[in-house]
Amino acid sequence: MCQLLGLNANTPTDLMFSFSGFSRRAEEHKDGFGIAFFEGRGLRHFVDHQSATQSPIADLVRRYPIRSEHIIAHIRKATQGQVALHNTHPFVRELWGRYWAFAHNGNLVDYAPKLHASFRPVGDTDSERAFCWLMQELAKNHARLPDAAELRQTLAELVPQIARHGTFNFLLSNGDALWAHCSTKLHYVLRQHPFAAATLQDDDLTVNFADHTTPTDRVAVVVTEPLTHDEAWVAMTTGEIKAFRLGLPLA
Amino acid sequence: MCQLLGLNANTPTDLMFSFSGFSRRAEEHKDGFGIAFFEGRGLRHFVDHQSATQSPIADLVRRYPIRSEHIIAHIRKATQGQVALHNTHPFVRELWGRYWAFAHNGNLVDYAPKLHASFRPVGDTDSERAFCWLMQELAKNHARLPDAAELRQTLAELVPQIARHGTFNFLLSNGDALWAHCSTKLHYVLRQHPFAAATLQDDDLTVNFADHTTPTDRVAVVVTEPLTHDEAWVAMTTGEIKAFRLGLPLA
Repeated sequence: MCQLLGLNANTPTDLMFSFSGFSRRAEEHKDGFGIAFFEGRGLRHFVDHQSATQSPIADLVRRYPIRSEHIIAHIRKATQGQVALHNTHPFVRELWGRYWAFAHNGNLVDYAPKLHASFRPVGDTDSERAFCWLMQELAKNHARLPDAAELRQTLAELVPQIARHGTFNFLLSNGDALWAHCSTKLHYVLRQHPFAAATLQDDDLTVNFADHTTPTDRVAVVVTEPLTHDEAWVAMTTGEIKAFRLGLPLA
Repeated sequence: MCQLLGLNANTPTDLMFSFSGFSRRAEEHKDGFGIAFFEGRGLRHFVDHQSATQSPIADLVRRYPIRSEHIIAHIRKATQGQVALHNTHPFVRELWGRYWAFAHNGNLVDYAPKLHASFRPVGDTDSERAFCWLMQELAKNHARLPDAAELRQTLAELVPQIARHGTFNFLLSNGDALWAHCSTKLHYVLRQHPFAAATLQDDDLTVNFADHTTPTDRVAVVVTEPLTHDEAWVAMTTGEIKAFRLGLPLA
């Protein structure tokens, strides 16, 4: 299996604290890592087939404070497809003049969707097939970019058709919002005023967010397993799809 | 204007020597840089809106010997579109289950192609519009991935329709071959046995390729202006399209 980490904020935020703890888990999830940072419509996309504990690229990400309102990271433990760059999440495609980044935790069995349009997998994973099918079906459902709530509704119709093949926790972003689907395991926390200190579970590291934020900042962090042991993580339920915008879940 | 650098080799090759000289030119071309490395079908794609002389990401590329058979790099001096990540070359799309990377040197005037299919620009540049149109028309011309020579022929039919709008030097790769079109300025050199020493024009750096290669290695480097002053650079001519595969130009 793999692990997912997503961030959605109302102000460009760096992921250094959360990624430090998250990438520690790469000792177990060693078959590659990837991270996508949106900057406006633009995207920085780092992937490596090395473990996030070894990769010079992961080291850059831990040390270089790239600030973004929408981030998706993934550490991989291969279940399908060889350990190779073309099988490393997040996957990226363009639709409606926006980039879309997608990362999956889980395993889909006998999943061979009908891909008849313009999204084809480059690699060999169930995950990329699912992403291509989602893009294809979203393109059919909307002539142009819908708002985050409308897109959430369309996902709610499409996702069960994939999820019946297995475990399908995923994160999806287009640089405007972050959508998260929980199949078996996904947690989120909202960080907002008054900010407090938090201590990483995987690392001997505490940060006082009040030192790094202004009172109007809002950040939502979504992750497979809670990263800290002193924050109010919410466990998502099976089948739940949440859309996050400006650091808040949509009602 | 901008500058282009492409590499095509028959064995995974690092770009550290050539990129060191090339990125020196970024003092003048300071509005971003980008580089795409194919690894098999996979792609590493680094972009920054900072100059390649300043960017921590460019520094990683200079120091970390990423080996690839197909590389496209670009340093930008903005002519159209703001200085932003979404306007930074190379641009990437997926077609026929392969990633395609594209970088452009030049300026297209009043260029508004009809984009009616599934490739839309995310940013505001003439370059990305041209790339989207090329992808759209290639998809119409071939039901599946053609070979490098067939694709060169299709490009020869399509490219003049863009080039009549202005200067259109470009590099295109899909991880199988590298295509280069010269509108005004593009040079290439073939490095093969017997390898010799070469000295960068922009930097006080000499490398003896014989120390870093085996006799069967072949590398083609394509660039806006020759990088070294002691190699046999070939100037491409206006309207010429070359396809490089396994470190050699196709006949």
